[in-house]
Amino acid sequence: MQQFDLIVLGGGPGGYLCAERAQEKGLHTALIEERALGGTCLNEGCIPTKSLLYCAKQYDHALHGAECGVTAENVRYDQRVAVERKDRVVTTLVRGVGATMKAKGVTVFQGRGTILGRKDGVVSVQVGEETLQAPKLVIATGSEASVPPITGVREGLASGFVMTNREILALKELPASLCCIGGGVIGLEMACYFAAVGVKVTVVEMLPKIAGTTDPEICDILMKTYKKQGMTFLLSTGVKAITETGVEVEANGEKQTIACDKVLLSAGRRAVTKGFGLETLGVAVERPGIVVDEHLQTNVPGVYAIGDCNGKLMLAHTAYREAEVAVNHMVGIKDRIDYSIIPSVIYTTPEVASVGETEQSAKEKGLQVKVVKAPMRMSGRYLAENPKGDGFCKLIYDTKNKRLVGVHMVGAYCSEMIYGAAMMVYSKLPIEHLDKIVFPHPTVGEVIREALCMI
Amino acid sequence: MQQFDLIVLGGGPGGYLCAERAQEKGLHTALIEERALGGTCLNEGCIPTKSLLYCAKQYDHALHGAECGVTAENVRYDQRVAVERKDRVVTTLVRGVGATMKAKGVTVFQGRGTILGRKDGVVSVQVGEETLQAPKLVIATGSEASVPPITGVREGLASGFVMTNREILALKELPASLCCIGGGVIGLEMACYFAAVGVKVTVVEMLPKIAGTTDPEICDILMKTYKKQGMTFLLSTGVKAITETGVEVEANGEKQTIACDKVLLSAGRRAVTKGFGLETLGVAVERPGIVVDEHLQTNVPGVYAIGDCNGKLMLAHTAYREAEVAVNHMVGIKDRIDYSIIPSVIYTTPEVASVGETEQSAKEKGLQVKVVKAPMRMSGRYLAENPKGDGFCKLIYDTKNKRLVGVHMVGAYCSEMIYGAAMMVYSKLPIEHLDKIVFPHPTVGEVIREALCMI
Repeated sequence: MQQFDLIVLGGGPGGYLCAERAQEKGLHTALIEERALGGTCLNEGCIPTKSLLYCAKQYDHALHGAECGVTAENVRYDQRVAVERKDRVVTTLVRGVGATMKAKGVTVFQGRGTILGRKDGVVSVQVGEETLQAPKLVIATGSEASVPPITGVREGLASGFVMTNREILALKELPASLCCIGGGVIGLEMACYFAAVGVKVTVVEMLPKIAGTTDPEICDILMKTYKKQGMTFLLSTGVKAITETGVEVEANGEKQTIACDKVLLSAGRRAVTKGFGLETLGVAVERPGIVVDEHLQTNVPGVYAIGDCNGKLMLAHTAYREAEVAVNHMVGIKDRIDYSIIPSVIYTTPEVASVGETEQSAKEKGLQVKVVKAPMRMSGRYLAENPKGDGFCKLIYDTKNKRLVGVHMVGAYCSEMIYGAAMMVYSKLPIEHLDKIVFPHPTVGEVIREALCMI
Repeated sequence: MQQFDLIVLGGGPGGYLCAERAQEKGLHTALIEERALGGTCLNEGCIPTKSLLYCAKQYDHALHGAECGVTAENVRYDQRVAVERKDRVVTTLVRGVGATMKAKGVTVFQGRGTILGRKDGVVSVQVGEETLQAPKLVIATGSEASVPPITGVREGLASGFVMTNREILALKELPASLCCIGGGVIGLEMACYFAAVGVKVTVVEMLPKIAGTTDPEICDILMKTYKKQGMTFLLSTGVKAITETGVEVEANGEKQTIACDKVLLSAGRRAVTKGFGLETLGVAVERPGIVVDEHLQTNVPGVYAIGDCNGKLMLAHTAYREAEVAVNHMVGIKDRIDYSIIPSVIYTTPEVASVGETEQSAKEKGLQVKVVKAPMRMSGRYLAENPKGDGFCKLIYDTKNKRLVGVHMVGAYCSEMIYGAAMMVYSKLPIEHLDKIVFPHPTVGEVIREALCMI
């Protein structure tokens, strides 16, 4: 029986940062992880995807450099090399997380944690032969790929014809063709990667648009660019069945079969709330996940749920922020989670980055807004690097409260620009102040300044 | 005789933005430009450099993609194609500036402007056959490459063996070797470009370090990386003479000759304050340029000097901000220039971006600071894209006034990240607030967050 101040169940971004912060704040902390530290994000999500997308970008440059004066013959892409490189990056980062845990004094338990129950305000968790006890518990069990009840999906997963993000990121040989079921962020990033390295990609999306709640004008640009890259899109299209050689789909009552070598299941993710004894605590679970308040506390005092398992906003950096809020709540530092200042990014070419209200969400909330849009072609750097690009920056400005409430960008570098926009939304600085921020010239970021001048 | 509210002398970034903003504020404005709109920045500075550097990056990816799984044969670089592409980018942007001037109602005069004098508060300027008059004048005549009094420099310039930024950016054939006199920002960006496309480059710098006042630790990383890219550096080395085939240098009393095919003069820039009748106004000029106050007004009421010609901080975006401050002063809007929030960037590989105080400048001002440094390897994206990179983010925190006063970065994307850091410095937000800004994961920008956590 080992006693801790805090037990964290799950070593993904939320879990490991929570353990780190808690230990910094003086809480003796145990972190339990069944698989590898870093969770989905590091091992089979964000990081591997970005590593592969980077390789695909190099390939694209070697193939299509003629306009820049770069010519090459026999340009080839070796998926095995790219995947092995990705594996090295992941290994380095996983080790880094382990080293940080050690340096901070977090006790890491490798194994499956099972909650045994809560008595007199103390939670017991079993991992392997050990039983751990602590007055505080953070559930950070993450999410898993949704497997929709499609005929043939189980068989496909078993045979390897159908893959989730986990399997596809380990694929050492390129299929000739790939069908992605679901055109959300995960589906699009993987579709973009495989299309870039020469795979024939078809994306099937049930909704009439790709990329979920992303600004519709941005989605139009994405679709246009992706199609130029050779991808095929079937929107408002349902999947009826998966056979041994393809995917049967239906749109407007018309059926067709998409023959393909591999299928990616990218139809969303589901919070992991079962299989680890959560029911012993009486924690409330609803769709889409464990119910929490603005401090990430569940209905059971001292029990928190952070990251994908609460289903709020399934992003690694949401989990980071939630981890900090939860720890602050435990130690009595005033803090609360505000999802409106959390940016999101799609790492395709072009990149997409957003924060805050969209035109649609602002409308639904009854906000009086002014919407302005500046093309990235106003930026000399953008034009110098993307002579045919049609990226833009759109601002959603609350005219009543006189503050910026949303920023939406599509185009080069916007993944690295959006944190500043998030700061603008967070800080509530009035426009006269935002106008005085100096953007270096020439940067793509200047488009934000141009857009600010339009308000 | 044409009457205006404002005459702007010089159509570079400062001049054209000044004219645009003045016209927006209701001032009937004339803009005089002798050469092409956009000035040095657009025609023979920032933009052409970035266009060429982008092409060099594509070449590098095609050449060195093996680690990413990308192989190619006979990889070649055609300088002519890259320069023609650059010319198209410049033409598009120059036309864009012209179109903006037209759309805003600015009257553009193509020709050399000569100040005739000032009488009863009205300035007269001649351009071609026209005489223009206005109560307000903005001098935005920019800068030119310094030509140090080195034996043989005039002959070299005349023969084309020696070049300034102007000539080198038009070079349609690559020299086999290049000697850059001066290792400041311009010298380094050009050196990096030519080295990347296969030219043997030597940089001669009089001072013991490159990159001017840039953080010394950043300079160390730059030097290390540049050397790996094949460049040679001669520091603390003076240039004695330029012959027909090389550059004679001396360090510690020892002389040597650097044989080369071309020489770049990148030994700083000098404010243009002569040759356009400035003396008729009695405007005070000292080194490094026209003397101005915090509203960019000279000692003569109604006469302003913005951009490089005042020699304050020779950057296009400084000129932009100065343009806005000058116009605001004319129309009575409270504003002042604050050079401490103006970022600066070096667009080499790796990129460098800084804003505010350095350790050195903070020390000189007697500030009590805490300096923290986070390696970019903490960022998963950075590691995924630069497995061997050693970029970092350094923060200078004023412990007495409890605010961030400087940010210095070296590494990928930092040109596009620095505006957010500039906003942190400008907004004076306390650290507890800066800590609540959410950075998307995985981005290189997260290194700023990591560094903030160290304060």
